Amino acid sequence: MDLKTELQKRIEEIESVIVGYLPEEAGYQKTVIEAMNYSVLAGGKRIRPMLMQETYRLFGGTGNIVEPFMCALEMIHTYSLVHDDLPAMDNDEYRRGKKTTHAVYGETMGILAGDGLLNYAFEVVSSAFDIECSENVAKAMQILAKKAGIYGMIGGQVADIESENKSVGIETIEFIHKMKTGALIESAMLIGAVLAGATDEDMQKIEQIATDIGVAFQIQDDILDLTSTTEVLGKPVGSDEKNHKSTYVSLKGLEQSKKDVEYLSNRALDTLASLPGENAFLEELIRMLIVREK
Amino acid sequence: MDLKTELQKRIEEIESVIVGYLPEEAGYQKTVIEAMNYSVLAGGKRIRPMLMQETYRLFGGTGNIVEPFMCALEMIHTYSLVHDDLPAMDNDEYRRGKKTTHAVYGETMGILAGDGLLNYAFEVVSSAFDIECSENVAKAMQILAKKAGIYGMIGGQVADIESENKSVGIETIEFIHKMKTGALIESAMLIGAVLAGATDEDMQKIEQIATDIGVAFQIQDDILDLTSTTEVLGKPVGSDEKNHKSTYVSLKGLEQSKKDVEYLSNRALDTLASLPGENAFLEELIRMLIVREK
Repeated sequence: MDLKTELQKRIEEIESVIVGYLPEEAGYQKTVIEAMNYSVLAGGKRIRPMLMQETYRLFGGTGNIVEPFMCALEMIHTYSLVHDDLPAMDNDEYRRGKKTTHAVYGETMGILAGDGLLNYAFEVVSSAFDIECSENVAKAMQILAKKAGIYGMIGGQVADIESENKSVGIETIEFIHKMKTGALIESAMLIGAVLAGATDEDMQKIEQIATDIGVAFQIQDDILDLTSTTEVLGKPVGSDEKNHKSTYVSLKGLEQSKKDVEYLSNRALDTLASLPGENAFLEELIRMLIVREK
Repeated sequence: MDLKTELQKRIEEIESVIVGYLPEEAGYQKTVIEAMNYSVLAGGKRIRPMLMQETYRLFGGTGNIVEPFMCALEMIHTYSLVHDDLPAMDNDEYRRGKKTTHAVYGETMGILAGDGLLNYAFEVVSSAFDIECSENVAKAMQILAKKAGIYGMIGGQVADIESENKSVGIETIEFIHKMKTGALIESAMLIGAVLAGATDEDMQKIEQIATDIGVAFQIQDDILDLTSTTEVLGKPVGSDEKNHKSTYVSLKGLEQSKKDVEYLSNRALDTLASLPGENAFLEELIRMLIVREK
């Protein structure tokens, strides 16, 4: 299997599903809808909906009930970037080489486009009950809401902001990793599993795999910030050191950090192998996410 | 019936329900939870959850399935105020005599507390499926998501912002009234009705009553901005004229505007009277909302 071709094919499939769920740019609220759609279509590898879809397929899911959830998760991921980029937050003018939402539409519309996307995510999810009004759909929605909120992504974001310019312990770093990146990856895989009717035991395995991926991904991020170059990474390196930020690497050392990435990566792949179902692409995807150079 | 006493009793009941649904101020994310709870508990007459509960009772509802929705709606109303008050929006330091959220916790936490509340509203609503996993609960969630988003409150907010410092027609003003204030009032009454199992015909009547209340409330707001005093109103008057803002009154004239408030108010009360069920308090509440001096 050529991973790059396979990946590109799936990204295109996912993007056509997402486009189908975007609101029409019309009416008195046209500007905010344009800003929302601009944000969602500004690129990205669609990792979260892809993990959701692959996990759904792993457990034998074949229907379209997963689609509104794939779109909703990508909208939530997008809104978090739009609000992160705001002047009162990271104040970024560019992301992936494109102007950020507030840089194009202004700060007011940046706030409202983020709010609009977060709300619209739940509007899209609520439409899933028209496809299937079941306990599994309700559980999927509970997972999404929890992992995106104060006991998930927002919680991690807050802990990260409060850790700036001071030294914090490894428990805080692990909390931030688990919540800020891990939570949406967990929700992606858990929702895929629950919608396909996975057992409780398999749900636990999936959650562990997703947590390992999210945490390993973040440790690798810290490693690359220290060892890579701006040219390879496509963003400034050494920013953590410059900001006097405690990181996993500054606390545990480079060698131990590399070992931990390998340990978490292997554990995730071993657990995946213990599950039934065709998983070749998912396995490659996990390897690509963790063992990467940029 | 002494309306003031009755109103105070219900506000206290509603607030105790809301407090029971607020997240605990603990963990690494403690600051944002404090900011969220501060915002929700900063006062207000709890009109939206009250209208929801009264409509639920009107159609014979007696359970607690309405409670997570009452809380969620108040959280959504609150987040919209928190984000409206931000420096990039209205830049208000005080609301109802208390410091606004960003004035106490800073702009970053103001954005995140708003996001946290909007997300937590849907977390609370998703917990309603544990009480009752039914099509009516799914419909209630669909109503909430739609009326709060770009086809409801956020849409009205965007149209309002884009109408500043230019003259707009009466259709735009009516859209803003219907969406910015009307949408959450509609969602309050529609959710109360659907959770109690109201018929489609009665749902249509409820929507019309709620729209009339919302629009009449906003016209009355425009009237008071022109005719009242800062002392009575507790906020600066004449702000619309100062901001060269087109209002319902500037477009249709004071006398016609007063007639329209009366017409909408009577129509809402007539429609209410055509519904079965005990409605004395709801009727008084509607009168109070529209025929008011502040």
